[in-house]
Amino acid sequence: MYGKLKARAEELSGELVACRRDLHQFAELGWMEMRTSSLVAARLTEWGYEVITGRDVCLDEARMGLPAKEVLDEHYEWAVAHGADLRFVEKTRGGFTGVVGILHCGEGKTVAMRFDMDALPVFEKTDTAHRPRMEEFASCTDGVMHACGHDGHTTIGLGVARVLSEIREELSGTIKLIFQPAEEGVRGARSIVEHGHLDRVDYVLGSHLTASDDGKCHICPGMAGTFATTKLDAVFTGRAAHAGVAPEQGNNAMLAAATAVLNIQAIPRHGQGESRVNVGVLRAGTGRNVICDRAKLEIEVRGQTTEVNAYMEAYTRNILQASAMMHQCKLAVDVMGSSAAIECTPELVERIRQVCTDDLAIDVNEPSDMGGSEDFAYMTRHVISQGGMACFTGIQIPCAGVFHSAGFDFDERALPLGVAYYTGVVWNLLGR
Amino acid sequence: MYGKLKARAEELSGELVACRRDLHQFAELGWMEMRTSSLVAARLTEWGYEVITGRDVCLDEARMGLPAKEVLDEHYEWAVAHGADLRFVEKTRGGFTGVVGILHCGEGKTVAMRFDMDALPVFEKTDTAHRPRMEEFASCTDGVMHACGHDGHTTIGLGVARVLSEIREELSGTIKLIFQPAEEGVRGARSIVEHGHLDRVDYVLGSHLTASDDGKCHICPGMAGTFATTKLDAVFTGRAAHAGVAPEQGNNAMLAAATAVLNIQAIPRHGQGESRVNVGVLRAGTGRNVICDRAKLEIEVRGQTTEVNAYMEAYTRNILQASAMMHQCKLAVDVMGSSAAIECTPELVERIRQVCTDDLAIDVNEPSDMGGSEDFAYMTRHVISQGGMACFTGIQIPCAGVFHSAGFDFDERALPLGVAYYTGVVWNLLGR
Amino acid sequence: MYGKLKARAEELSGELVACRRDLHQFAELGWMEMRTSSLVAARLTEWGYEVITGRDVCLDEARMGLPAKEVLDEHYEWAVAHGADLRFVEKTRGGFTGVVGILHCGEGKTVAMRFDMDALPVFEKTDTAHRPRMEEFASCTDGVMHACGHDGHTTIGLGVARVLSEIREELSGTIKLIFQPAEEGVRGARSIVEHGHLDRVDYVLGSHLTASDDGKCHICPGMAGTFATTKLDAVFTGRAAHAGVAPEQGNNAMLAAATAVLNIQAIPRHGQGESRVNVGVLRAGTGRNVICDRAKLEIEVRGQTTEVNAYMEAYTRNILQASAMMHQCKLAVDVMGSSAAIECTPELVERIRQVCTDDLAIDVNEPSDMGGSEDFAYMTRHVISQGGMACFTGIQIPCAGVFHSAGFDFDERALPLGVAYYTGVVWNLLGR
Amino acid sequence: MYGKLKARAEELSGELVACRRDLHQFAELGWMEMRTSSLVAARLTEWGYEVITGRDVCLDEARMGLPAKEVLDEHYEWAVAHGADLRFVEKTRGGFTGVVGILHCGEGKTVAMRFDMDALPVFEKTDTAHRPRMEEFASCTDGVMHACGHDGHTTIGLGVARVLSEIREELSGTIKLIFQPAEEGVRGARSIVEHGHLDRVDYVLGSHLTASDDGKCHICPGMAGTFATTKLDAVFTGRAAHAGVAPEQGNNAMLAAATAVLNIQAIPRHGQGESRVNVGVLRAGTGRNVICDRAKLEIEVRGQTTEVNAYMEAYTRNILQASAMMHQCKLAVDVMGSSAAIECTPELVERIRQVCTDDLAIDVNEPSDMGGSEDFAYMTRHVISQGGMACFTGIQIPCAGVFHSAGFDFDERALPLGVAYYTGVVWNLLGR
Repeated sequence: MYGKLKARAEELSGELVACRRDLHQFAELGWMEMRTSSLVAARLTEWGYEVITGRDVCLDEARMGLPAKEVLDEHYEWAVAHGADLRFVEKTRGGFTGVVGILHCGEGKTVAMRFDMDALPVFEKTDTAHRPRMEEFASCTDGVMHACGHDGHTTIGLGVARVLSEIREELSGTIKLIFQPAEEGVRGARSIVEHGHLDRVDYVLGSHLTASDDGKCHICPGMAGTFATTKLDAVFTGRAAHAGVAPEQGNNAMLAAATAVLNIQAIPRHGQGESRVNVGVLRAGTGRNVICDRAKLEIEVRGQTTEVNAYMEAYTRNILQASAMMHQCKLAVDVMGSSAAIECTPELVERIRQVCTDDLAIDVNEPSDMGGSEDFAYMTRHVISQGGMACFTGIQIPCAGVFHSAGFDFDERALPLGVAYYTGVVWNLLGR
Repeated sequence: MYGKLKARAEELSGELVACRRDLHQFAELGWMEMRTSSLVAARLTEWGYEVITGRDVCLDEARMGLPAKEVLDEHYEWAVAHGADLRFVEKTRGGFTGVVGILHCGEGKTVAMRFDMDALPVFEKTDTAHRPRMEEFASCTDGVMHACGHDGHTTIGLGVARVLSEIREELSGTIKLIFQPAEEGVRGARSIVEHGHLDRVDYVLGSHLTASDDGKCHICPGMAGTFATTKLDAVFTGRAAHAGVAPEQGNNAMLAAATAVLNIQAIPRHGQGESRVNVGVLRAGTGRNVICDRAKLEIEVRGQTTEVNAYMEAYTRNILQASAMMHQCKLAVDVMGSSAAIECTPELVERIRQVCTDDLAIDVNEPSDMGGSEDFAYMTRHVISQGGMACFTGIQIPCAGVFHSAGFDFDERALPLGVAYYTGVVWNLLGR
Repeated sequence: MYGKLKARAEELSGELVACRRDLHQFAELGWMEMRTSSLVAARLTEWGYEVITGRDVCLDEARMGLPAKEVLDEHYEWAVAHGADLRFVEKTRGGFTGVVGILHCGEGKTVAMRFDMDALPVFEKTDTAHRPRMEEFASCTDGVMHACGHDGHTTIGLGVARVLSEIREELSGTIKLIFQPAEEGVRGARSIVEHGHLDRVDYVLGSHLTASDDGKCHICPGMAGTFATTKLDAVFTGRAAHAGVAPEQGNNAMLAAATAVLNIQAIPRHGQGESRVNVGVLRAGTGRNVICDRAKLEIEVRGQTTEVNAYMEAYTRNILQASAMMHQCKLAVDVMGSSAAIECTPELVERIRQVCTDDLAIDVNEPSDMGGSEDFAYMTRHVISQGGMACFTGIQIPCAGVFHSAGFDFDERALPLGVAYYTGVVWNLLGR
Repeated sequence: MYGKLKARAEELSGELVACRRDLHQFAELGWMEMRTSSLVAARLTEWGYEVITGRDVCLDEARMGLPAKEVLDEHYEWAVAHGADLRFVEKTRGGFTGVVGILHCGEGKTVAMRFDMDALPVFEKTDTAHRPRMEEFASCTDGVMHACGHDGHTTIGLGVARVLSEIREELSGTIKLIFQPAEEGVRGARSIVEHGHLDRVDYVLGSHLTASDDGKCHICPGMAGTFATTKLDAVFTGRAAHAGVAPEQGNNAMLAAATAVLNIQAIPRHGQGESRVNVGVLRAGTGRNVICDRAKLEIEVRGQTTEVNAYMEAYTRNILQASAMMHQCKLAVDVMGSSAAIECTPELVERIRQVCTDDLAIDVNEPSDMGGSEDFAYMTRHVISQGGMACFTGIQIPCAGVFHSAGFDFDERALPLGVAYYTGVVWNLLGR
């Protein structure tokens, strides 16, 4: 069966590439994957999946970092005008863009797989040597680009969906394909977990494309090294005053913000693991001669472990509070995203490694550290805490440009490789 | 003659009010007084003045804080469409909005008077109890408002122009009426001085409306207490990097900016006079998880004397430089406006005081400190340095709201009072 | 009588100089004027004054910036060994070094005069060109020096005491001579006021030597320009930890202190008057590789008015509190000294000016700003608030070196001049 | 032979304990190990070693963090009075306290071993339950204590010297025993390397006592996890001024210091490894009302790799420079200590592991991270760079109290274990 699955994946290559390029061209930002998710839902339906969409996927109030209503509404019109499937797009209004496809194959374990769908606010390279330009599938929306390979992830998910539907008679158990919105900024996964979609899941699988150094393709099960993270927005509200005439009548939000920036960056390192901290954006003040009455900071902290991240977050919040108090400003803090560190179950990682090597004859590499954060961690944490197992895997292929940059592109051999990988592992776990 | 001048000013009241309300309704920001100045030029021409406009008023390269070309171009269209005098507006293109009107009255001294024309970026109050709303002359442009009374100043200038033209036969010397753009932000006066319009001037007069506490109107010659000031924009340019993966590869402009804000605000007080400092605006960074690579600060410093201001400016520049170096960022600093402290010639102040009391029978008050800054100071400094005399005068009248606020309005008795004041003083100085 | 008083003062010159030089040689720091005050008490007693000493002068708990008990005890031994009057020194134990001398002259007004007695922690110049070295009356205690002229003040006070006692029959009212400890650091005056010694006082007079530019001596009544001030000590207590192994286990008092220093210095200027701020001393930490667990700051703020100073103090305290909270440290703040701004009663100043000019034929100068602070302000404030009048006067004489420096010395003509001034004014106020 | 060496070590237990307790009682700080090193030199001489002492061990100018000359001189007197060997102590004057003992055993490789001798500035616990108190070998010097086990290290070195001298006939090659001063603060090793004592060394061995969790003793070859580190002292020199009268005339070293503290602590984390930073001590200013003209910071940075440490040091120096420039202060920076991260040669580690397990039958544990820093790193780096091999080993035994604390003590089974370990490894490397 492993050989058959691998061959089938190869056979689908042309379709997979076409699908990926369509998604690349119509890239959509987090919580706005309206066209994308309507197409996903349509295909899953076509292939016989039970399809869950709209408010039934992401718990409304657990969605983090949601764009403004007007932005969502405007994008809805765009999606409708750019090829969204009209049977499914309606339910994505208001940013409900997750899709879950379920394939019931009788008694047995449940295997969940996560595929993320969102693009990044990056202007795609205009250089014609950039393949998406040359081959004319570059993003049609200025400032929105699949610069992290999620177009590939979604495509792999659809390929997996198709192949598994073809062998459903030979499987025993339940397949759950989760197409997640808003992974960038680690905003989406929690709302899916909190809706209950990871309850009673025995195995949860996820993956990310990564860059290969040697021109070859590899599978790297057990990829870790993602950091736990919390994204905070903080707003100091002070009081304006004329800076020349009566500076003492102001409550200076600029001073609060500057003090917070320096002290947040100066949070002592942690002896139990690495930490990160960044105030990436600061917008403060309205006029040169007015005591600044409002300052907004966009902050993120990270920790090698969930505990280190918690330390960083707590210290940051304390600094914000004290900075506000220091200059008699009010403070509002919002969580715009958060994620634990990914945990993999060693036993499952080892089993998958053997499937790849022994059964699928795919080259396996040691997983590298990712450095960044990944909210798939919410899913691994939840499943493991309920007694299940989790594995996060690198799909390592040659890439052009670096991740998140304007010139990013990846070798499309990734697509059949990913499909072979997932279907092979599912066969190993649920094959009759 | 004094009585006659005062009566004539009263007689013109209705016209002055109409003029002021027209200007109020079509308020224009600094360097964009295109409609305003075209109307001023038209009237001065009509009354027999030699009229200088366009590039002959403000020295191009000495104009500070100029808006972007597109903004100027767009506003030009607006001015044309909103009643600008088509004979004069052409020469204001590109922000050349100053006007000088000269009345040659034979041999004698030269008296220059300065009237400023620009409005502020303030949204006018929508409350119908606000008189400009009730009487329907509120600004027709959202976010632009004469909230500092310069509509009154320009109107007074026109009234003075008219009355002086009527008595020109009885004067001996030269009258120079300077209609200045961009006083807000102390951006315009220097370019007029540098063009040479204050050379060989014997007396220079200026004024500002101020609020009266007692419901009555007063004239306050010798108003001082304006601070010298410098307005600086500073841009730190660092290098972006992924805040999670490789923060050490960035050059963090946010840290440079926060360090600069705290240290600039912490510049030691000066033992020889009061100082002020404000970082009013800070814009930094593009993304939460990106090391900030650009931060822009809008700064102003002030000093009770020109020397104290120079100390504040030099220290600020040094802090900016060191902050950039500290985090290996590049730095660009631009002067967006500057002004010395106003100086009045005691002898002239005393003379004017007597004209008001003894000849015009106007109630004279002690001048109060203005607190803010006023670039008329460039003119007083230049004229005094060349052996002339200067006086800055408060026209004190009841006001609604505070200066620079959305609900500001003033008692229009200010208009004939101002005309009587200026014409009386000119008569005293140049009357045959 | 004025002529007689002036002549008597001249006559006493030799004794005054001898007295001043003795005090100069045995200079004593604030709250340790044990030898000095015992001698003062002895002479006042001898001249018939009611003499109040020890705990009856300064209210114990209102004494600010008191040295440690051991320091006081040790100095007591020194005083006994260096010529203190044994009848009076006993009561100075523990730092009770104030003396009040009262001369009852029947019905009438009460005139209080303040003379301060303490020296400074300055090493006196060793250069033999320094007159106290050349004429052998330099301080015998290393690091303690009358570098602010209080030796002269105390001497003048004793001269005044003597002369007034000689003319007591011709006076009508009450004379109160207050010899104050610990003026440096503005620590002593409040405790005398709070004990009630300024209650029911009609006139309070004080003075300070100041430098003359023209080689001549002048009297400058109505000297003001002293700032209100508050001196604070702040101690942050955190928790130590190994900086390499577990920095997160510390509570970093160094970060709290650095944040406080920058923010205190950055307190916005006040539109209603000048302010000053300084963190003069910071001691933090015990070891390079230990997270700092203790930091002590010595702070002072000043304001041109008592209100501006209050703003500075309140803001400083708020910053200290927030800085402690920010890094989870404890905070202790102690007031080490404080003073209001001196207020003079214009009516009394004018009266004194006339006494000097018309009656005493002393050259009168315009008072200059002192710049620093002076806790005589407590006395002026209290007396004025109870309906009395106050005057602070400069005794302007040629000086060597600058005040508070190692080479300071003053022209001893100051001594008879001061005696003539005070006795003349008292005669004017209380003469029968 | 291995069995024989182990047995001989056991046999010497009593002497080893006596030696360690003598050293513990007469603990000496870094560069002051005058008594200690004189005794070491005496014994090495007695056992037939070529002994190098005084200026021939540590390169004078490469010694870091040397105490003041007076301190050294005073301690010399103490050492002479407390049992130093008079034949050898003379050459330690001025802090030349290193000793190298060489045993020439014919042709062959050179094996160097490092033993450190210095104590810490810690007050030893007075509680009688503390074994050194109970058994009366607590430090006789207040504030100096062997709280890091170097008394044990030196004792092991002497035991190794003795046993190897006994089997010299059976060895082939050269033995070099290096008794190092001033390891605390990572001050001493570099000066030995720079003198050339590690040139042409084939193997270099070092060790540190570490705490065992299970009550048993283990050997942990290949211990790493020490951080590279640099210790810096920085002095800002500004200019004093009266904080009330003329603050602008000062150059405020306090502001420079506070800015440096916050920014140094805020140096961005490094993506390639952990970092540490601490400003442990800050002394600034002399008087509350004086603009601070001098501030001294004691700083340390660390990095998981030598490169990360270099980044931290370079950034710190840049911040110091910019902070000085910002407030127009001068800056002096001194290196007070530094160390690379320890590197072990995997091949040698593996060989030693097998010696322990197979030949010596000692229990081997996985090495743990040390967290702190260790200047043995200078030696490993130098030897490896010349083609040799290095191994740093943990001697893991039960301990009381934590390292560097007042109650620290260790199980003296460490002593024979250490002797057996070193002699066994040497036998493996050089045995005929």
